[in-house]
Amino acid sequence: MYQTFEAPPGGAASAERLARLRERLADYGLDGMLVPRADAHQGETVPPSEERLTWLTGFTGSAGLAAVLPSQAALFVDGRYTLQAANQTDTGAFTIVATHEVRTGDWLRGAVTEGQVIGYDPWLHGKAEIERLNSAVEAAGARLSALKANPLDTLWEDRPTPPLGAVRLHPLELAGEDRAEKCARIGAAIAEDGADAAVLTLPDSIAWLLNIRGGDLSHVPVALGFAVIEASGLVTLFMLADKVGGEVHEAFGDRVHVASPERFGEALAAFSGKRVLLDSQSAPIWVRDRLESGGAEILWGADPCLLPKARKNAAELKGMAAAHRRDGAAMVRFLHWLETQAEAGVEPGEIAIAQKLEDFRAETGQLMDISFDTICGSGPHGAIVHYRVNRASERQLLPGELLLVDSGGQYPDGTTDITRTICYGAPLEEARRPFTLVLKGLIAISTARWPEGLTGRDLDPLARRALWAAGLDYDHGTGHGVGAYLNVHEGPASLSRRSGTVALEPGMVLSNEPGYYRTGAFGIRLENLVAVQPAAVPEGGDRAMLSFADLTLCPFDRRMIDTGLLTTEERAWLDAYHARVAEVLSPDLPEDAAAWLAAATAPL
Amino acid sequence: MYQTFEAPPGGAASAERLARLRERLADYGLDGMLVPRADAHQGETVPPSEERLTWLTGFTGSAGLAAVLPSQAALFVDGRYTLQAANQTDTGAFTIVATHEVRTGDWLRGAVTEGQVIGYDPWLHGKAEIERLNSAVEAAGARLSALKANPLDTLWEDRPTPPLGAVRLHPLELAGEDRAEKCARIGAAIAEDGADAAVLTLPDSIAWLLNIRGGDLSHVPVALGFAVIEASGLVTLFMLADKVGGEVHEAFGDRVHVASPERFGEALAAFSGKRVLLDSQSAPIWVRDRLESGGAEILWGADPCLLPKARKNAAELKGMAAAHRRDGAAMVRFLHWLETQAEAGVEPGEIAIAQKLEDFRAETGQLMDISFDTICGSGPHGAIVHYRVNRASERQLLPGELLLVDSGGQYPDGTTDITRTICYGAPLEEARRPFTLVLKGLIAISTARWPEGLTGRDLDPLARRALWAAGLDYDHGTGHGVGAYLNVHEGPASLSRRSGTVALEPGMVLSNEPGYYRTGAFGIRLENLVAVQPAAVPEGGDRAMLSFADLTLCPFDRRMIDTGLLTTEERAWLDAYHARVAEVLSPDLPEDAAAWLAAATAPL
Repeated sequence: MYQTFEAPPGGAASAERLARLRERLADYGLDGMLVPRADAHQGETVPPSEERLTWLTGFTGSAGLAAVLPSQAALFVDGRYTLQAANQTDTGAFTIVATHEVRTGDWLRGAVTEGQVIGYDPWLHGKAEIERLNSAVEAAGARLSALKANPLDTLWEDRPTPPLGAVRLHPLELAGEDRAEKCARIGAAIAEDGADAAVLTLPDSIAWLLNIRGGDLSHVPVALGFAVIEASGLVTLFMLADKVGGEVHEAFGDRVHVASPERFGEALAAFSGKRVLLDSQSAPIWVRDRLESGGAEILWGADPCLLPKARKNAAELKGMAAAHRRDGAAMVRFLHWLETQAEAGVEPGEIAIAQKLEDFRAETGQLMDISFDTICGSGPHGAIVHYRVNRASERQLLPGELLLVDSGGQYPDGTTDITRTICYGAPLEEARRPFTLVLKGLIAISTARWPEGLTGRDLDPLARRALWAAGLDYDHGTGHGVGAYLNVHEGPASLSRRSGTVALEPGMVLSNEPGYYRTGAFGIRLENLVAVQPAAVPEGGDRAMLSFADLTLCPFDRRMIDTGLLTTEERAWLDAYHARVAEVLSPDLPEDAAAWLAAATAPL
Repeated sequence: MYQTFEAPPGGAASAERLARLRERLADYGLDGMLVPRADAHQGETVPPSEERLTWLTGFTGSAGLAAVLPSQAALFVDGRYTLQAANQTDTGAFTIVATHEVRTGDWLRGAVTEGQVIGYDPWLHGKAEIERLNSAVEAAGARLSALKANPLDTLWEDRPTPPLGAVRLHPLELAGEDRAEKCARIGAAIAEDGADAAVLTLPDSIAWLLNIRGGDLSHVPVALGFAVIEASGLVTLFMLADKVGGEVHEAFGDRVHVASPERFGEALAAFSGKRVLLDSQSAPIWVRDRLESGGAEILWGADPCLLPKARKNAAELKGMAAAHRRDGAAMVRFLHWLETQAEAGVEPGEIAIAQKLEDFRAETGQLMDISFDTICGSGPHGAIVHYRVNRASERQLLPGELLLVDSGGQYPDGTTDITRTICYGAPLEEARRPFTLVLKGLIAISTARWPEGLTGRDLDPLARRALWAAGLDYDHGTGHGVGAYLNVHEGPASLSRRSGTVALEPGMVLSNEPGYYRTGAFGIRLENLVAVQPAAVPEGGDRAMLSFADLTLCPFDRRMIDTGLLTTEERAWLDAYHARVAEVLSPDLPEDAAAWLAAATAPL
């Protein structure tokens, strides 16, 4: 079982922990402290040993920050998490501040007083965040101060030990490029940027570069650590020795040196007089401070592995396709099972449904993990975009309701992420029109062709056009990047208004997941992963164009489609997609599921 | 006649003028100088007295910058103008630098040498430009220096005198809001921003605020001047006294004080200790320097009139509609005339065509000016996006060719801007498909509905989708803002990837002008002006939405449409649009043109 469904304990211990933390801060001569959800790697997932924010506040969301001050404390969360934070937290101890309404810096400026010193752990924050917050508190005459040790950690008696997942080699046939080549070309790119070395603090960048995977985190097959890559291509990997076995050392040879994380600081200090590239979005401020105090010149830029990792090569795309075929068969078995439950009059709980889906994935024999905690929302729960089922929240799926299942698997050859919205029993008539509009959005992205050089932002509106025409929309991006047996949320490209200036390039894998949510009633989201590919230039065309290829193989619920709303081309796309799903998956399915699939993929 | 078709003289005198300028610079102790195309108001149109760049280089484009250095000189132009610059300029005297390939700062950094002092006229540059260029030359050990007087002006013997167009009152029934109300609400907005006053340097902002129009420029009905508006709503207008008659003074009363432009500097200096709002995009650096030396605190922001001016009120929209009805009738007479020419076997020249169109507009009896020099491109000239016909460039329109005409009128009640692409005689078969795809793009924008809060950038892709699908695109934005009897290019909103973060709001008027250009063969552009309006929320919709209303009334060339490429909805849109065009315009047309229009607007 790759996920737990226990309700989180909540913030019952918060008041007492907060009081003890304040005492400890006084010992340190501090007036307050920042406690972020992040660890030193700024990932969405952190190991239990880094769940400081949960320990202090009870809040379990994937992003947030607490500020502890002498007479008040606040928990800052974004719009996704305001309700959850209020439910999980002792609101007598913590004021919940919604950052889309009041910015963290603005709240802090009003809350701190002249002369106060607010501590922060420089391992847990990036430069931009600290600069922004520091200028806010400085406007009130206070200041932030980097701490040598984290006072919270000294109070956290039963703090879990850091994870020691074994590092595994990611085979060349799946990686498609050996680590020597990767290191040489990233080293060359660093030299091209005028730097002598780059510091890597993102575990998935290190995993990609060195063709390794790890077991330190749930759902994300990375090994936590840091690395320095020099322009020569030589790499020093700072990682606990217990995680790195002989086979890995042997594969690394003399191109990749493994050192204790305790040596990281002195290695940084040794770059005196050199130019070191550092990712301005994710590098902990500790790294900056250590480089600067050692006399290195910092070149702020982007982690040099980000774009090469996002552009999947042929072997990675082949692996992603194989993973999707496997995952699609599991999904079809699941959807078939769900229909048998409906026919039998069962009213299954959300947890049982999520477990059953996990079982089908596990039965492929190749599931390494799920790629994130399954979102399994029945009826009104479907309208909660980031719904996470547990024993306290669970409800039963009733006939006539919609079920929204957003899930994925980590396989050795690829990562999947798929959402289907299914009617349980009779189709929910009032949802057929928005369902079809969402499907039209998905098809618009899947069939898009566009000139080279555009960003995902330039495509996002195509997914919304049909919904907009009906007076509807959804409050999330249309898609995110996805790694190849790595992070299910991978930068730097996305399909959203927040996609920045990163152009889409062949090999990038993204999700295509428009939705529609009617609070208290139902939610609809349909998601396929797609890979960017060079598009054939149609006759008469005169530009180099790109397009998407669908990786995900799984039918859409035909019963929910109002065919009258589809154009001839959209209908043809769906019929062709369904025919391909049936053709590819049927050989992998037991007879009853194959029969179900044949009916589920019949032409509209 | 509102435009001339004389070929510009070119850069024959450049070498000699450049030599004299270098001598004069030496007298001033300068090593070089920047000569921009801009005047102090940073508009697209400048009066002849400000055409310094043309005087020096021969180049007549609407944007550009020359840099004169001791042993070399460069003319920096963007991608639109590289060919034109090479044709008009003495390339022995000036190196043409395409700024989309080499940035101005990068070129300067490589060209200047340590210790050099490069002068610039602080009236003619904004803060951002000077900061960017200064940091570039400082990297090479040189520096920019603000000049007290412009050395070029002392050499320009026959420099035209500054224009003295009379200021006219813009009637309340067309403005829709009297100047006292406007001044009060802009003053309140300035106070809301925490400022004591704002400096206005954009003539169209001043014209909008004070309900005046002027005659200083071709095609743009503004009066050149500066203004200061205080938080109380009191305005001081710095404008040559000869331009402001008694009727205007009387209308201004004691809320708007007219002062000599020579008093502008001392008025700025008087803001010692006050906070003054200044537009960071357009204010001349001279204004900043004068405010700073006077002890004012500058609040960088946006000109407070920009957004209110862009949001047209009901009276302005009514005026725009009336202007478009009038202009549409002139366009229909023109299109009818063109067809009679084709039938008569005439092969008219581009100038005669442009003049004929101007005549039809003038015959409305209400034309104040055309809104820009007519783009009248026959055959291959249609593929030159900013083609400007003159006696040297002109060619005749031949049977079977396309004619692209992009033109507009300035009427007392509104500004028009319309593009139609027409086949002359038999339709050009190879252009019918791209013509129809461009039309689909125009229809996609015209019929778009979108949630409040989006920018024009979020709609731009809708105009391109059909072209992209065919492997085609166009290298310009889909649309720009348009003023109400003001600038035909008006900020701050647009329909393009460069539209920034300005949300579309009801009352904004924009052009909708997708295109397709096949170099050496033909160009297609179709343009209607549209006004943003609140959209009816369709049944089942749950968001406040916006949509466009078409202002332009003129048929699209039915002979060029491949109806097989249109959806049922697109065809219905076109038929309904054509029916409306016929219904509204027919009463205003002579019998023969009305008969032509009836046929031209028959259902597809």
